[in-house]
Amino acid sequence: MYKEEIKVIDCTVRDGGLMNKWQFSDEFVRGVYDACVEAGVDYMEIGYKSSEKAFSRAEMGPWKFCDEASLQRVVGHNPGKVKLSAMADIGRIDFDDILPASESLIDMIRVACYVHQTDKAIALAHHCMDKGYETTINLMAVSTVNEHDLDEALADVAKSRVPAFYVVDSFGSMFVESIQHLMRKYKDALPGKEIGIHAHNNMQLAMSNTITAIIEGATLLDATLMGMGRGAGNCPIEILIAFLKNPKYRLLPLLQAIQTHVFPWQQKIDWGYHIPYLITGALNEHPRSGMAWMESDRKNDFVSFMKEMHDYELLE
Amino acid sequence: MYKEEIKVIDCTVRDGGLMNKWQFSDEFVRGVYDACVEAGVDYMEIGYKSSEKAFSRAEMGPWKFCDEASLQRVVGHNPGKVKLSAMADIGRIDFDDILPASESLIDMIRVACYVHQTDKAIALAHHCMDKGYETTINLMAVSTVNEHDLDEALADVAKSRVPAFYVVDSFGSMFVESIQHLMRKYKDALPGKEIGIHAHNNMQLAMSNTITAIIEGATLLDATLMGMGRGAGNCPIEILIAFLKNPKYRLLPLLQAIQTHVFPWQQKIDWGYHIPYLITGALNEHPRSGMAWMESDRKNDFVSFMKEMHDYELLE
Repeated sequence: MYKEEIKVIDCTVRDGGLMNKWQFSDEFVRGVYDACVEAGVDYMEIGYKSSEKAFSRAEMGPWKFCDEASLQRVVGHNPGKVKLSAMADIGRIDFDDILPASESLIDMIRVACYVHQTDKAIALAHHCMDKGYETTINLMAVSTVNEHDLDEALADVAKSRVPAFYVVDSFGSMFVESIQHLMRKYKDALPGKEIGIHAHNNMQLAMSNTITAIIEGATLLDATLMGMGRGAGNCPIEILIAFLKNPKYRLLPLLQAIQTHVFPWQQKIDWGYHIPYLITGALNEHPRSGMAWMESDRKNDFVSFMKEMHDYELLE
Repeated sequence: MYKEEIKVIDCTVRDGGLMNKWQFSDEFVRGVYDACVEAGVDYMEIGYKSSEKAFSRAEMGPWKFCDEASLQRVVGHNPGKVKLSAMADIGRIDFDDILPASESLIDMIRVACYVHQTDKAIALAHHCMDKGYETTINLMAVSTVNEHDLDEALADVAKSRVPAFYVVDSFGSMFVESIQHLMRKYKDALPGKEIGIHAHNNMQLAMSNTITAIIEGATLLDATLMGMGRGAGNCPIEILIAFLKNPKYRLLPLLQAIQTHVFPWQQKIDWGYHIPYLITGALNEHPRSGMAWMESDRKNDFVSFMKEMHDYELLE
């Protein structure tokens, strides 16, 4: 499955930080960065670009903000071998918070939005492009978007200058047929633009959904070390790289980073496949109820969790 | 994806027993059985039918042998609601070890073989059919079989009376395209026969490979509670049932059995996705080296494991 145009984006710190409020040590972030450089990973998404007005520094670690001083301190030692990405959420950042790209270590800003925010996302993405950044728009929770709204969003993106648009399975509820359907819709609606895939693993389909997207023409592939990410986590980058067998990537540095930095975190926080996340995924719901359950002392009482879901009869 | 003809085979005790030499308590096996009955699972594969001459009772638990006294003791309380299956390995059982079906609680005997044993498997399967059993042949490790040998095996099975034949991804190295390829080959070669799928989860593709097989016409679906099985384990039955949303199945009894019986075992034995199993799967190799590593005190030294694989440069 060799495709020269494939680019892998490591999202370990950005998506994994959703599980620990980005309270990673500098050593952790530097370890992930060095592994990405050694492994030939194309981009590392190192966190969110957020306004200091939207979140508290007392609560959130530095990778919720990605200020230049933090970037310089942690990854300034080896610039340029892997491109750096930051995600921006609509409403959590002001245009003025974004430095010109020439003054930043960040290469790419990916704008995350819900479907009703598509116009705002395009405006923010254009602003980032005008400041010199690469950019994408990542339309979240597409599994809950009705077809009319999606078609309208795609038409707006098609008219924009934004060069890349993502299939984001935020709830981990999609499978081969739904990925195929969306990929074909996106490709048809967005000629000349790149398509990305960001999968979640609630039904253990994140890796296969990424493969399906590749087959259907996706070229931007999101993945994380050991799948570290919100709830059931993401497509594990070590599986993706082992599978791709693409000569530009190396697996061993990623295994080293897992062993040294990521595996110890798995003893502390419960990302990955767990029954509560299966249930939210199968119900096509946000994982927040599953995450709250996993943080409670009833986390292994799967039956009670399922019975508390208001629509559990769908699965009973 | 409603297909009335789908049948789910729970293999928790049979495949899971490969990880603990079938040392399950009667309560465990009865719990799985009762869950299968309540959930509407079509078959429960309760173990291997093996000769007492081939294995020691001192080492192996009762489900390596599946004698009638054990079956009667544990699942004799509720016969007939779920069909019982046992697996027979070529060379590990004599024809005379198999009782007439009318004298056994077993409904189906599945014959497992490697490609060079296909003729022997057909002979044993015919013998089982003549004694009144349902039967299948499960050709193991098909990812390592060359096309000429596979075509010859399929031609032999096509000529036989054996009604069902399995795609078995023993090493967990297959993905959507390889499953599609084999399913189409099997369907073409075996008109009128049922096709089954037995997947392993080394690359987190067991669930999606099972979906692909369904789409391609497989009707016999192997799965286990929490994926319990050799090495990286199998397709998790709770995901499969949640996904199928088929009215004949219920999820809740399976979650109850996981919670009560299976989850505690996961604290004791390391089936499921682990990096050593990813590496053997990506290399299309038997998981035995990964299993030995996982039993050693170096189990979390992923880098050293990979370097010890003689052909690791393929992935490096």
